[in-house]
Amino acid sequence: MGPGPSDVSPRVLNAMARPTLGHLDPVFIDLMDEIKGLLQYALQTKNALTMPVSAPGSAGMEACFVNLVEPGDKVVVCINGIFGQRMVENVTRCGGQAIKVEDPWGQQTSLQKVKDTLKAHPDTKLLAFVHAETSTGVRNDAASLCALARQYKCLSVVDAVTSLGGIEVDVDGWGVDAIYSGSQKCLSCVPGLSPVSFSPAAVAVIQQRKTPVQSWFLDMNLIVGYWGESGKRAYHHTAPVNSLYALHESLLMLREEGLENAWQRHQRGHEKLYNGLDALGIEFAVAKEFRLPQLNSVFIPEGVDDAKARRLLLESFNLEIGAGLGELAGKVWRIGLMGHACKDRNIDHCVASVAKVIR
Amino acid sequence: MGPGPSDVSPRVLNAMARPTLGHLDPVFIDLMDEIKGLLQYALQTKNALTMPVSAPGSAGMEACFVNLVEPGDKVVVCINGIFGQRMVENVTRCGGQAIKVEDPWGQQTSLQKVKDTLKAHPDTKLLAFVHAETSTGVRNDAASLCALARQYKCLSVVDAVTSLGGIEVDVDGWGVDAIYSGSQKCLSCVPGLSPVSFSPAAVAVIQQRKTPVQSWFLDMNLIVGYWGESGKRAYHHTAPVNSLYALHESLLMLREEGLENAWQRHQRGHEKLYNGLDALGIEFAVAKEFRLPQLNSVFIPEGVDDAKARRLLLESFNLEIGAGLGELAGKVWRIGLMGHACKDRNIDHCVASVAKVIR
Repeated sequence: MGPGPSDVSPRVLNAMARPTLGHLDPVFIDLMDEIKGLLQYALQTKNALTMPVSAPGSAGMEACFVNLVEPGDKVVVCINGIFGQRMVENVTRCGGQAIKVEDPWGQQTSLQKVKDTLKAHPDTKLLAFVHAETSTGVRNDAASLCALARQYKCLSVVDAVTSLGGIEVDVDGWGVDAIYSGSQKCLSCVPGLSPVSFSPAAVAVIQQRKTPVQSWFLDMNLIVGYWGESGKRAYHHTAPVNSLYALHESLLMLREEGLENAWQRHQRGHEKLYNGLDALGIEFAVAKEFRLPQLNSVFIPEGVDDAKARRLLLESFNLEIGAGLGELAGKVWRIGLMGHACKDRNIDHCVASVAKVIR
Repeated sequence: MGPGPSDVSPRVLNAMARPTLGHLDPVFIDLMDEIKGLLQYALQTKNALTMPVSAPGSAGMEACFVNLVEPGDKVVVCINGIFGQRMVENVTRCGGQAIKVEDPWGQQTSLQKVKDTLKAHPDTKLLAFVHAETSTGVRNDAASLCALARQYKCLSVVDAVTSLGGIEVDVDGWGVDAIYSGSQKCLSCVPGLSPVSFSPAAVAVIQQRKTPVQSWFLDMNLIVGYWGESGKRAYHHTAPVNSLYALHESLLMLREEGLENAWQRHQRGHEKLYNGLDALGIEFAVAKEFRLPQLNSVFIPEGVDDAKARRLLLESFNLEIGAGLGELAGKVWRIGLMGHACKDRNIDHCVASVAKVIR
């Protein structure tokens, strides 16, 4: 019950242990098509360029920036946690100019500040933000931020690593242009894959670049030859076949449950956790109206030794929770309720165990 | 029995299906240390910076070049197949100047040409070559090429994707400075990981760069914070935990068998395959003295339809072999004898099946 990787269902683990097919085997290619369709369902999009990058979420982030940013491009980046900062690192390493919109950790990105910044920089190419900040537990207002991007004629880039499967992600409804997620959060698949999706407008930008994408491995112009239209699959790199079996199974489970049901299960789980921890006098670090159900930042009670308490939870209660990151290190714990792990039994065990270690 | 991914042992598949631990769990960190030690054994090196990149071999290649190449750097690249060409792509995208030493596909890289080129370009920073060319089945003379790199005061970068575990790879003995491999060839692990190793000289070059590494995800200066000395592990990206279980198990199997025994098994398998195919009148595309045992390129017999024959092998004989790549497309088949797949039963089945489809 940390910030990810989350618990993986035995069904997904079993799927992954099936014999390794060739990455151009016709049966595997059918599976790739199904994965694309299932990802389109999960992301609520018709984007043709929707597929998993063969590496963790950090590489999905990099895939979005290396494909969309050319040297000198202006990118407005919203920062209210560690992953916004990582976006700036990515933009800079692509030779782009990152214009930061900073808000305190634990707060939402201010729409007014973003608006003012876009107004001040009319030549902005991309607006990038984190939908669900894993470092703080804050939900940013993705719909409004994407609307601002459209209004100011730039493309939106959205980090949905922790949001996908846990709260609503509506790529076509919000008009997202580029989005990346991770396999190991609310999808409850094994870590190592990063679903991405690009709108037709983003694809056009990638195809019309003046400079080559600096990463060969992440160049969408090349990857599309492998993940593109069926029947034309050509080798680019060797796909992580077994991890893709796992992703396929976890996405099937999401579709069987239904997106809305999955979101409601996370919300119910969060409320149950809140009630349990509140009764222990533990305070949440994020205001209710933009609190993520799947990532709960709570203040470490006064007098409790952070590392010692987490070690005790792990060793005596078989329970992993996350430490604070960056500014919040030593101040908060991060309790994940992600995917398969978000169930009553776990929440009861968590509250009961935390009650014992903070005594 | 294609050019990879190779067959994965049930033991490795079972290891992979164990419950997902947190990527900072003390038990997992112990496993990481074991993986490092096992990779040092497999690569025959004491290099401290020896670890798996969290993505396939193509990302391992990119990890070597993005860390070692700065804009303007000269890199001599040996090309006698598709992966040498891919190295050039990588160098160019890093802003480096690639100086090509080209030899025909199916031939070894000429040591004399490399020597002449290094002499003509005394400011060369790196000499890069492919040890085992998966696109042709040629073994390049790694020991001599590394000796040339030392003689001309540049660092060596070696692609060992297909060689590691199948033929000798002697990082410290040869004086290799940077090497990458893949999990899915002769290690017979699932695809998706790329073992890499950097010599102290290469590490010094990476630490003394004037420009940041263009990839955040592959920046060794950051990754070392996660994969470096035990007890100091900090989050960089979420490791592909279950795939690392698989790598650990496959490396354990290699150590149990013993490096020399594994090389001999591949050589014996190759000779058996050669004898079987030779008796069918099938000719090998690569001369005996630099033929790889684990990747056998054979000419498609005259009058045989390439795609139809391979489809028949797959559908009626449950056997995958590889198509030719690049210049050799439509001319050769590539038959892999890699790791777990290199055993008598498979070779007998392969020869008997090929005999039937070429009739």
